[in-house]
Parts: sequence; structure tokens; C-alpha cells
Amino acid sequence: MTAPATGRPAPVLDLNADLGEGFGRWTLTDDDALLSIVTSANVACGFHAGDPSGMRRVCSIAAERGVRIGAQVSYRDLAGFGRRAMDVDGRELTDEIAYQIGALDVFARAAGTRVSYVKPHGALYNRTVHDPEQASAVVEGALLAAGRPLPVLGLPGSRLHEAAVRAGMPVVTEAFADRAYTAGGTLVPRREAGAVIEDPDRVVARSLEMAVERSVSAVTGERIPVSARSLCLHGDTPGAAALARRVREALIDAGVVLEPFA
Amino acid sequence: MTAPATGRPAPVLDLNADLGEGFGRWTLTDDDALLSIVTSANVACGFHAGDPSGMRRVCSIAAERGVRIGAQVSYRDLAGFGRRAMDVDGRELTDEIAYQIGALDVFARAAGTRVSYVKPHGALYNRTVHDPEQASAVVEGALLAAGRPLPVLGLPGSRLHEAAVRAGMPVVTEAFADRAYTAGGTLVPRREAGAVIEDPDRVVARSLEMAVERSVSAVTGERIPVSARSLCLHGDTPGAAALARRVREALIDAGVVLEPFA
Amino acid sequence: MTAPATGRPAPVLDLNADLGEGFGRWTLTDDDALLSIVTSANVACGFHAGDPSGMRRVCSIAAERGVRIGAQVSYRDLAGFGRRAMDVDGRELTDEIAYQIGALDVFARAAGTRVSYVKPHGALYNRTVHDPEQASAVVEGALLAAGRPLPVLGLPGSRLHEAAVRAGMPVVTEAFADRAYTAGGTLVPRREAGAVIEDPDRVVARSLEMAVERSVSAVTGERIPVSARSLCLHGDTPGAAALARRVREALIDAGVVLEPFA
Amino acid sequence: MTAPATGRPAPVLDLNADLGEGFGRWTLTDDDALLSIVTSANVACGFHAGDPSGMRRVCSIAAERGVRIGAQVSYRDLAGFGRRAMDVDGRELTDEIAYQIGALDVFARAAGTRVSYVKPHGALYNRTVHDPEQASAVVEGALLAAGRPLPVLGLPGSRLHEAAVRAGMPVVTEAFADRAYTAGGTLVPRREAGAVIEDPDRVVARSLEMAVERSVSAVTGERIPVSARSLCLHGDTPGAAALARRVREALIDAGVVLEPFA
Repeated sequence: MTAPATGRPAPVLDLNADLGEGFGRWTLTDDDALLSIVTSANVACGFHAGDPSGMRRVCSIAAERGVRIGAQVSYRDLAGFGRRAMDVDGRELTDEIAYQIGALDVFARAAGTRVSYVKPHGALYNRTVHDPEQASAVVEGALLAAGRPLPVLGLPGSRLHEAAVRAGMPVVTEAFADRAYTAGGTLVPRREAGAVIEDPDRVVARSLEMAVERSVSAVTGERIPVSARSLCLHGDTPGAAALARRVREALIDAGVVLEPFA
Repeated sequence: MTAPATGRPAPVLDLNADLGEGFGRWTLTDDDALLSIVTSANVACGFHAGDPSGMRRVCSIAAERGVRIGAQVSYRDLAGFGRRAMDVDGRELTDEIAYQIGALDVFARAAGTRVSYVKPHGALYNRTVHDPEQASAVVEGALLAAGRPLPVLGLPGSRLHEAAVRAGMPVVTEAFADRAYTAGGTLVPRREAGAVIEDPDRVVARSLEMAVERSVSAVTGERIPVSARSLCLHGDTPGAAALARRVREALIDAGVVLEPFA
Repeated sequence: MTAPATGRPAPVLDLNADLGEGFGRWTLTDDDALLSIVTSANVACGFHAGDPSGMRRVCSIAAERGVRIGAQVSYRDLAGFGRRAMDVDGRELTDEIAYQIGALDVFARAAGTRVSYVKPHGALYNRTVHDPEQASAVVEGALLAAGRPLPVLGLPGSRLHEAAVRAGMPVVTEAFADRAYTAGGTLVPRREAGAVIEDPDRVVARSLEMAVERSVSAVTGERIPVSARSLCLHGDTPGAAALARRVREALIDAGVVLEPFA
Repeated sequence: MTAPATGRPAPVLDLNADLGEGFGRWTLTDDDALLSIVTSANVACGFHAGDPSGMRRVCSIAAERGVRIGAQVSYRDLAGFGRRAMDVDGRELTDEIAYQIGALDVFARAAGTRVSYVKPHGALYNRTVHDPEQASAVVEGALLAAGRPLPVLGLPGSRLHEAAVRAGMPVVTEAFADRAYTAGGTLVPRREAGAVIEDPDRVVARSLEMAVERSVSAVTGERIPVSARSLCLHGDTPGAAALARRVREALIDAGVVLEPFA
């Protein structure tokens, strides 16, 4: 199927996923498969997952395939995989973020490219939606590490994006095809029933709606607008890579141009 | 006192010390005092000691005072402070070294400078004196991280220096005023009696001999040549900073020019 | 000086302090001095501080001197010294608490005694004052590890004590001579001015008031009752051991009987 | 099939495998399947793998199914999965071993049983075959933790077993059906070709030979005696659980009595 002749320009979308989330002997994400699917790779930097050799390998494959490398920064919490909110002091958090980005950038540079954006992981992602101090700390850490404005991938309306805008950093919005949305356009919290959409067909359908119609059905039935430059795909569950590939193919078939944002 | 009018050019020496060797709540080295004494700071990078905020602070003060910043890279061993030799695979070690240097370089850059050299810490230092695989791994990691030749501070004749020369990296030799030497010019192992010289007056006297006469007495009494561009001072024991200051002042009084090597 | 002949029975008090809070190369508390002062030792178990050899050493000295050994359990956070609140799932927290107590008990047993009580550290202490889920998790972890009721040392009125009572565990109340209290009997938060009392004479005086008169002046001037079976002394600042010794001696001079609670 | 009527008593064998080797978000071994196959579970204790909740779960299932629980103690090396030899001081190693066993014992007790034996993991296993200091440290740590003789599972002739015998601890010998043996009866090092036997049929056949005939073919063709009370099965590769089940069933079919040693 080719793009519909609507007269509208073809929608442009980035696909991002978390990669390199093993540690030492342990693996989690099917990095090789996902690096043939996404256009942006959120690479774990060693604080919730990710070890130097894994980071190097992901960066190397990503660079070969033209996938952009982003720093998936996290709280320092291997045991909790960065999924436990922590009351980290802002200044310390800034420095921890900078440390992670600097370490990753070595492997991006060695692969002939650079860290192109930053995206917080797990509990830090959720916390910086509403916590202005931690949101600013992430932005400051990114600025410190990069020495230049670095795009910040996150939720529209988040404190993280507000802090980025204040700091003169580009913001890139993302949406989740496998997450339910409230009528207000926020994500239904994971602890609520129906928060995660598990039916692959629905995930594909929602991806298309988000990309082409720029809207999606809220959990309460209303149609809500979704304006995302990037779609987040998940790679850490069985079948995740296969579903991600289906989404990619459906988007291409619908005429969506898959292109990194950076 | 001014330099003696010997007709010889004044000897030039760098003073280096390990800094930033705290972690979180714990402190070890008197960083502020030592940064007024040394010309090169071996900054811990988080694997045996050193946390992001401490690294940033040391880099900031070092840059203000014109002290060069080096990456004091280590095995990943907080519990053992990097003092336990580890059979790390060469490729993994390379990547771990690169990771540490990249992280530190963020804070050096933020302070307006760069990581100027690399020096292995503790057991990795001792291991790379004689282990060619780990020595090469350190050098490759430094080259990977820096993307350019980076001076390698170490013992003359070490495998580390051999690997650095093969890789086209500059080597910088160092000597230890508080360590006994064998007649062959190697360090007396720490486990042997008399390996560490604790009398401050002797440490000062040996520093002067090393700097001015380029020789020192071996543990067996012979006079042996010492040709070091840098003198390593220790900062992690009570009184260490005071002794380091005495050494510095004695060297200046003797006309030695204290200057970083990089 | 002997106890005043008031006709009242002599007050009985336990003195507790955090001990063994080093890690590997790093030391923090003056364990040897404090173990001659306190009657109960809150021993760090490896999650915020404390390594096996340090735990063994503290247990050994404590047992020799008749000091009771308590498990100072914490979030898993070496980098933050357990001072950053973490949203740890209750079940995981229970298991982490049990793990720490089990590890410590080995060294208590080896010294001829047992872990006699539990006290949360840092952010976990503060969190379990008001968070019923984490409070229950700590109590359940202690019960799981000990296989019998284990006294829980904490603040009167805390959720932690409520959970302990529900679980049939003894509760032991503590007070802080160097912390300001509100009129309501709670601690003035550390971030507020005057929260920590730094004048040694005032700390000694307040210790006596708390022990003998069972009351103290609130920050707003009112006299408030304090009923504590244990007084917490701090050991991690310069001069802390000396102040702790002054408090101990003043209490003994005033006729207070220093006795562990367990 | 029943045991052959040879007049000889039926051979008795224990089956052991490494279990609980995940950490936080990561899993490795198929614990549930293996706990239906083995008679002894070597449970990771948190130093190379294993977190408190995972340890609790494995202990709980093992106890339900009558599988003995052993402490799979390791160097402190999550990043290297305990596979990198470390020059740990004997005294420290003793304490680290004791710490791990004490922590695991909490979960064994909570499940109604106890830690029944100790087996070093990975590089520590290999190191204690020939290093008497580390071998003694492991044995002393086990004795310290258990407060009573604890069986030590390992290679016949190893320094570990020598140290155990000297300390009055029972020793239990094990063999590996999927590893090649030299004519001298030692394992062919993993780095040599053919060290690991990957053909499932050969692994099953060798298991039978070892159990019934008490001998096996060396890599050089000779028949060598194997006298093992326990057979080690591997659980950390794809297909490992299925192969372990085949071995178990073949042994039972051949009349071998599968019984824990402790």
C-alpha cells in the first residue's frame, strides 16, 4: 500500500526504543533486531542497565544503520532497574546525568557519531513529568555534558519539556501506541487496569491513528489529539521486536516517512 | 632561596597525586589542599572511588588553579578500592577504561579544559607493569575515549609504557619519593618491610635527590639512576597533604621548576 | 556524684549510635570510641554502608563490651548513603530488610550474641515515620529474618511503631538530644534553621532533661514531654565521640542508669 | 524401566544446578523447571547474581519440593558475574562468604529449612581448586556463618576440599557430564576446544556412565574413574532445562537413585 493521495504532506515520524538494557551476563532487549526497526536508540548508560561493552556494541550497530543514539539516563539503581523514584538532590542528579551522557558519548564518537538527544528512563521519566527540580536537573546535566543544546525526548506538557525550553534546548514529543490515554491526554498510570494495551492489532492500529490522524481514542472513549514527533516502541518483552516490526511496516505502508528527529 | 648557579638548566618536574577518592558520603583525600600543591591531578572516575559531584568539584578547582586533569582509571571494585587484581577480559577492560575517561572528560570540559592524561589506579597500575594484555587494554581504552594520543603516566619499563609507545601515545615516567627501590630500579613490593618510607625528612630528601641529582639510594645501598618527569605524592593518609607541601617547597627552594608535563 | 535521693526510682536509659558506617577503604564513624560509650550499636549492614569485615569487627568489639547489636537496615543506596527516599515495592523491601539482618546476624552469632533489634537508617527511617506500606515492610522483614519478635527502635507515634505493635513486635522509643522538637513533639525537619543543635553544652543539658525530667523545650518554647527508652547519639561528625562521652558521663553523674533495652 | 538386577546396590546420585542467577529485572536460569529436576539447588547470594526476592522465591519452591538449598558464594562482582578471578585478601573473603551464607539462610529458614551446603561460583570455584589461601577462606567463612560443619561441594582433590577436611567439614564430590576430562581426571579448561560437550546425547550418555559405571572417557580416549556423589547440571543456556530433564529421566530409568547428599 502506498501513501494516500490526500494532498497533505506525508506524516513524518521517528521510532524510538530502549536498547542496551542488559548488564554483564544479563541481556534484556533484542538490540540487533530493534536496530533494524527504530530510527532512534535510547541507549542505557550504566546506571539502571548497560555496561561499557554493551554500550559500545549498540552504538556501533546504530551508527552503521543510521540510527540516532540518545542517552537513556537514569537514577543509579541497578537492583531496581531505575524504576523506583528516588529523592535525589538536584545538583547531584545533574552531575549523575552528565556522567552518563559523557560515558555514552565516548562510544558514540568511537562509532563516528555523537549522542544526539537525551531521554530519562523509568522512574526518572515519570518523576520529571511533574517534578520541576528533577526536570531542571536532567536538563542541566544534558547541557553540562553536551556543551550545546541537546534535544530532550519526552511527554508534551511535562516539566521536563518546560525546563528544556527555558534552557534553550529543543524538545521532541513522543507518544506510546501501547499505552492508554486519559481524556486529558496524559497516560493512564500503569497500576490501573487497561493501562497497557496488549493486543498487537490494537497497538498497530493506534500507531497508525497517531501517525496519520494525529489523534487516538482515550480510555473513556473521546477522541483526543496526539501530536508526537516520535513513537516509543517497547523492546523488553517477548514478542516485542516482532510487534515493533509490524508497527514499522504498517506505518511505511500508510505512507508515513520514518525519520529521526535530531 | 634561588636555583643554584650550576650552569645546568634547572630541572623540571611535575607533581601528581590521586584526588577525588571519596564516594558519596565518604571522603578520603584532602583535595582542596592537594590542588594547591600538585601540578597534575589523577582524578578517580567512579570505578574504585569518585562520584559525579566529586569529580566535577575536583575538575573545577583544578582548572581554576591550572592543575592538569588526568583520568585515574581502575577496575570496577568499590568494595576493594581497586586494590584487588582482577582477571578482566581485555576487550571489556578497554571499554571500561573508555567509559571512565568519557565520564570524567565531561567535567573537565565543563571546567574549560580536558582530560590531559591517563594513569591506572591501584591493582590495575601494578598489573599493567607486567601484564601485556591488560596494559594494551588500558592504552586502547584511552585511545578510544580520547580519539587522540593521550599521555600515559606510569613506571619506566612497564608493559603499560611499551603498549603506549606501540600505539603512538606519549609516555610520562614517574617516581615515588616515599617508596624504596631495588638495585634494579623497580619498587620494593609493599608487602616487604621497608617498602614504604614513612620518615618525612627522608621523603623530602629523596624527592630532592630524584629531582636534582636524578638518582636515589636503593634499598641495598647502591646509587641508582631515576629519570622521572613526574613525582607521585600520596594524599590519602593523615599528614599527607602537609608532607606533600614540604616536598613542593623543598623542590622550589632547590630551583626545581614545577610544571605539568602535558 | 550519685543519684539524687528523690524517692523516685533512678531513670534507666539506653544510648544508641550508628556504627560501622564505613565501606571498604572508607571509614566514617569512630567505632572503637563509641563502643565504649553506647549500650546499643546500630550496625550498618551493607546497603547504605558497612562491609562484611567491618560488620564483623564491630560485632566482635560490641559483644566483648556488652553492647547490644542492632541491625541498621537501609535502602540499597551506597552512592547516596541511604539518605534518598526510594519508592521501593513493599515486598521487595521486606526481602531486602531480611537479607541485611541475616547477614549481620552471622557476625553477631560469631561473636557469641545475636541481632537484638532493628532500626531503619536515614531516608528509610524518615519514610517509615509516615508511610504505612514501607513501615510494614520493615517490620515484616525483621520478623522474617529473626523468626521471632525483634524490638523495633524508632520514634513514638511512627507508622513503624504502629506496624510493629500490630505484628506483635516490641517497640522501643528514642529521642535525639541534638535535634529541635516542635510543640507537637515531632522533630523539626533538618532543612529548617535550628533543626540541629550544635552547641555541645545544650546537647548535654537536653540529654539530662530528657533522661531525668522526661521533658524538653520545644523550638517554640513550650515544655513538652519526652518519653524515650533510648537516646540516639551521633557518631559521624568531628567531635561526635567526644560529645557522646560527655553526654554519657553527665547522665551517669545525674544517677541515670545506662542499660540496653533488649 | 527398573534398576538392573546386578546384585550391586543401586547407585545413588545428587543432581545440583546453579539457580536464582537473575538480578532485579534480569533473569537467567529457568528456576521453576530446574527445581523439578535437581535434588540440590546452588542459590546465588547477591554477589555475582541473586537479589533478596529471588533468593526467597527459590528457597520457597526448593523447600516445597524437597530440594536442598546450598549457598552459591562468589566474589563481589555483578558486572562480571563472578567470572573474573580476584585477588581478595583471605580475611576479607572469609567475611564476604559468611555474609552471603547468612543472608541466604534467612530465606532458607523462612521456608522451613536451612542452608545445607556451600559451593563457590565461577572464578572462585576455579581459583579454590588450586589456591590454598582462598580455599581456606571459603571454608572458614562457611564455618563462621553456619556455626557448624557444612558440606562443601566441589572437585575431588581440590584445595577447597583439602581445606574443608582440615576444618572438619564434610566434602561432597561432583562431576560434570557436559565437560571434557583430561587423562589425569581434571577438567579440560574452557578456553580449549572441546572443553564443553554440546551434543545432548553425549551429555546424557556420559551422565549414565558416570553414575552407573563410575567412569568416563577422557579427552585423550582413556577410561578414567569418576567418583562423584553429585552431578552438576547447567541451567543458564537455552535448552538447558530440557537437557537436565533428559539426564534426570535417563538416570532414573537406569535405576540410579536420585537423592540429596546433605
